[in-house]
Amino acid sequence: MSSFGEPIDGIRVDANALLGWTADIIRRLRTPDDVAQDVAEVLVAADLRGIASHGTFRLPVYASLAEAGVIATTARPSRDGGTPVLSRWDAADGWGPHAGRVLMDDAIERALDLGLAASLARRASHFGIAGWYSIRAASRGLIGMTMTNASPLVAPTRSRKRLLGTNPIAVAAPAGRFGTFVLDMATSAVTWGRVLVADRRGQEVEPGVAIDEEGWSSTVPSRVLTSGALLPLGGTEATAGYKGYGLAMLVDVLTGVLAGANFGTRVVPFSTTAGPSNLGQLFLAIDPALAGDDGFETRMEALCEELVNAPLAPDAPGPVLIPGQPEAQLEAERRRDGIPFEPTDVEALVRLGERLRAPFPEPMPGPGSSAATGSTQPLAQEAR
Amino acid sequence: MSSFGEPIDGIRVDANALLGWTADIIRRLRTPDDVAQDVAEVLVAADLRGIASHGTFRLPVYASLAEAGVIATTARPSRDGGTPVLSRWDAADGWGPHAGRVLMDDAIERALDLGLAASLARRASHFGIAGWYSIRAASRGLIGMTMTNASPLVAPTRSRKRLLGTNPIAVAAPAGRFGTFVLDMATSAVTWGRVLVADRRGQEVEPGVAIDEEGWSSTVPSRVLTSGALLPLGGTEATAGYKGYGLAMLVDVLTGVLAGANFGTRVVPFSTTAGPSNLGQLFLAIDPALAGDDGFETRMEALCEELVNAPLAPDAPGPVLIPGQPEAQLEAERRRDGIPFEPTDVEALVRLGERLRAPFPEPMPGPGSSAATGSTQPLAQEAR
Repeated sequence: MSSFGEPIDGIRVDANALLGWTADIIRRLRTPDDVAQDVAEVLVAADLRGIASHGTFRLPVYASLAEAGVIATTARPSRDGGTPVLSRWDAADGWGPHAGRVLMDDAIERALDLGLAASLARRASHFGIAGWYSIRAASRGLIGMTMTNASPLVAPTRSRKRLLGTNPIAVAAPAGRFGTFVLDMATSAVTWGRVLVADRRGQEVEPGVAIDEEGWSSTVPSRVLTSGALLPLGGTEATAGYKGYGLAMLVDVLTGVLAGANFGTRVVPFSTTAGPSNLGQLFLAIDPALAGDDGFETRMEALCEELVNAPLAPDAPGPVLIPGQPEAQLEAERRRDGIPFEPTDVEALVRLGERLRAPFPEPMPGPGSSAATGSTQPLAQEAR
Repeated sequence: MSSFGEPIDGIRVDANALLGWTADIIRRLRTPDDVAQDVAEVLVAADLRGIASHGTFRLPVYASLAEAGVIATTARPSRDGGTPVLSRWDAADGWGPHAGRVLMDDAIERALDLGLAASLARRASHFGIAGWYSIRAASRGLIGMTMTNASPLVAPTRSRKRLLGTNPIAVAAPAGRFGTFVLDMATSAVTWGRVLVADRRGQEVEPGVAIDEEGWSSTVPSRVLTSGALLPLGGTEATAGYKGYGLAMLVDVLTGVLAGANFGTRVVPFSTTAGPSNLGQLFLAIDPALAGDDGFETRMEALCEELVNAPLAPDAPGPVLIPGQPEAQLEAERRRDGIPFEPTDVEALVRLGERLRAPFPEPMPGPGSSAATGSTQPLAQEAR
């Protein structure tokens, strides 16, 4: 099993070189140029923002899905219903990041006219980090909201069975001199990736975030991974885990159920070639300038100002952070210093490059002494 | 301090009698008939659904706010900006439940035409349970979403200071034979009301849901109440409390910041007559029938079916519940058996009735042996 965590001692690859190589790999899987570019942008964005579990590390799996025909590499999304405010699209099992980019861009354009607009996708594929699409809206001065359902890994409160996905919610909004507010969170207590990393490293997971096969709370990663489940955000019933369960269900309702896609246990897991996932996805954009009151970003700055200057708890490891701030800082560092990879992951990517006749980029020279600083991201939302 | 919890040994009042009396009290505070009716409906709905903290128990406070002119009793909301999809309203510091009802109804009517529509309020007052407005949309076959900001009680992750409200999110959707999916949740780990109840009863609160003045985790209600704070959903940083912090901030962004109302620490607490709260509120409605795929409720039933029949964890106190299910069951019981009140709360309401010359309804006769069953609501979201 490969890495989902922050590499401890890896090599570093230049972000632009990685972007070009990734697009090349996707193209060589019989994907049109512009579609391949979207896929590469979203995957490398995950690497830049420290969400390795959703980055180029996944390329070997994507390649096998494309080669098996589970991802329809030449498919493009088309509108097939809804209204001018809430359009519904058939993503035709194509590349998730391309359909997602098209649907969010369409929602953005309509929101600039209507004040608020949304796109719904059915037959959608895994689209990487949900935050990317919301950030795209924020970069145009809008509020963006993105949701997707996912294959079941989370047990609803009181159950021991995986019935819901880690169904993320991502919202971004421009925040003036504070950059961009980005909340990109799985609705589970922790991500599957965190359990995988703990397993690799021989560590335990926090109590109250996962259960074993029988439904007992478990801190042993292997028990969770084989036939246990994640608990929803909030943990057990005593600590309000039913709120996280409600949020996970809410995302399924607003995506799979609303769009007429798969939902609940019907969602086919990402990593199998059994068939397309047929995910449901929602992309929503709001134009604050049309909402009725000027000065949205000035007010965002005032709110952020109050938060980052808040008096700290005695055990705080640092100042209060604005959601998205640590990821943005990491992205700036990695654009400068390169993206770190664990050796085993690089090996898999090198082999993929050899097979598809696109050599993996040369690592960046030097020991990368500044690399270590990049791994401090206490509030980084590792996503799903 | 009065009750926020489930009465242990109280009297019972007929729901219709309570509704009529409440409307009468609001009218006697110089409120137009139709506005008073809205206020009564929302407050009694909270009592019926077991969210006593937001019910008629609060009437003495509402009366003092109205009499001090902090609530403008004759004010009506008016559109003052936005677009046909996202309208912005000036709620003019009037009664919250009236403005909320008008704004959600307006969003519903537009959503039936547009597929999706929203209303934003500034200068809004406390509106009771957020779920009521979303349920109103669901009763028309739509998905409803309601958010409001609130006065600061929650410390953002790493801080020891109350900077954000318990900022609730309420979403409701029709679910066929399963009734209505209703997620109505504060974005804090627990409600202020739960801490108050624990204090009254000499109990502690769960570890990791609140902090004391210095910012240390505390289970002692009095320390939390005097100068501590609630923690966001998820609890501490180790158990992903930053997600709850992000959700609380998200609600503030989509309400106070977006609508041009107060936000963060600017929100005036509900219980003071220092001035209007100037809350921001969002009401959003989606028509599934216009979203592009038929059979929304059939799919909701399939999802609910899978959840309620899920295999249970060994420590589960009962079957998996659909969010909103325990509250709906309680409402049915209380429409039949009456609404329980603690004696001290009834005394305050009786005095209010005497002062405003509207006698509080006579309690229902009999010991109310079925009363005890109504207090079992393990998943009831006690709201803010």
